[in-house]
Amino acid sequence: MTDLAKGDRTRSRILDEAVDLASVQGLGGLTIGPLAERLGLSKSGLFAHFQSKEALQIETLDRAATLFRQDVTEPLRAVADRRERLRAFFERWIAWLDDSRLSGGCPILAAAVEFDDVPGPVHDTAARHLAELQRLIVKFARAARPDGDPDALAAAMIGLAMSHLVRTRLLGDRQARAVTMRAFDAVAAS
Amino acid sequence: MTDLAKGDRTRSRILDEAVDLASVQGLGGLTIGPLAERLGLSKSGLFAHFQSKEALQIETLDRAATLFRQDVTEPLRAVADRRERLRAFFERWIAWLDDSRLSGGCPILAAAVEFDDVPGPVHDTAARHLAELQRLIVKFARAARPDGDPDALAAAMIGLAMSHLVRTRLLGDRQARAVTMRAFDAVAAS
Repeated sequence: MTDLAKGDRTRSRILDEAVDLASVQGLGGLTIGPLAERLGLSKSGLFAHFQSKEALQIETLDRAATLFRQDVTEPLRAVADRRERLRAFFERWIAWLDDSRLSGGCPILAAAVEFDDVPGPVHDTAARHLAELQRLIVKFARAARPDGDPDALAAAMIGLAMSHLVRTRLLGDRQARAVTMRAFDAVAAS
Repeated sequence: MTDLAKGDRTRSRILDEAVDLASVQGLGGLTIGPLAERLGLSKSGLFAHFQSKEALQIETLDRAATLFRQDVTEPLRAVADRRERLRAFFERWIAWLDDSRLSGGCPILAAAVEFDDVPGPVHDTAARHLAELQRLIVKFARAARPDGDPDALAAAMIGLAMSHLVRTRLLGDRQARAVTMRAFDAVAAS
């Protein structure tokens, strides 16, 4: 393996661990020390890959968005019916929040709340990913229901995903997924 | 004024400022130093009222819940029609998020995301307030739509409030309130 390839592999391993840590602690809790410890790296070894906490936070959000595309969006190409595609998208999204490689929920939704009033590049990165997600949902919603209100449907779906996380993780509600899907079906049919 | 009454007034002033600071910085950012500075108090003066950051965080959430009851729930007694009451509740809630005495959104919803994976008394306090809010919404929803699905409606309404905050604050969407109310009307009618 070349040094470059080895560097890329370490970088990739750091980001996977960072996504997982951020999903539990929030991006604010993503500090170099504890992350280096989890990876068995020295702090200076980690600093060689990410020069600042902020750079690490930004790339962690980018990596979470890549995982979301791989796990949720890309498999949808196999679903031809447009209404089924919208539902399959939402179902995969909720499954991703519950069962994914992240042990503590979606870092992008968490950052959207954590950094909404904190101007700067992390805020801007979270906003960019969330706006992209919103555009994707509006596109799916418009295709599924050309006579519907895609903006309202997107607002309700993003909200349901957020309240799903809170009902699951904060309230420990075991019925959360069933309730979330019933609410989605009511919203999508309205 | 007695010393006791003066102490209560200072305590109340601290909590109002703490709710405002927590609404911007999150509860995690609610530290004794910056809060004392905003109030023109010494750190030790502030510590005389709240012995720990955790005690301050918990009472800040309790105060936010009190403000919510005052501004959102209590005025609803004047609304007799049950469907109108559900809508008036949601409308007041969104107005409270946008225009209230909090400059940065609802500390309870923010804490619900921030502390979902952080066990301890702050987590438990956020969970208690959110569960109480959920029960209130289910009660209003059941009264408004005895044939409906109050759990799904409550999940959708909590979600819409959360996504409203993100669309307003992170994405700066000026249409957010109109979209949120259209989504509510679709959800409540479904």
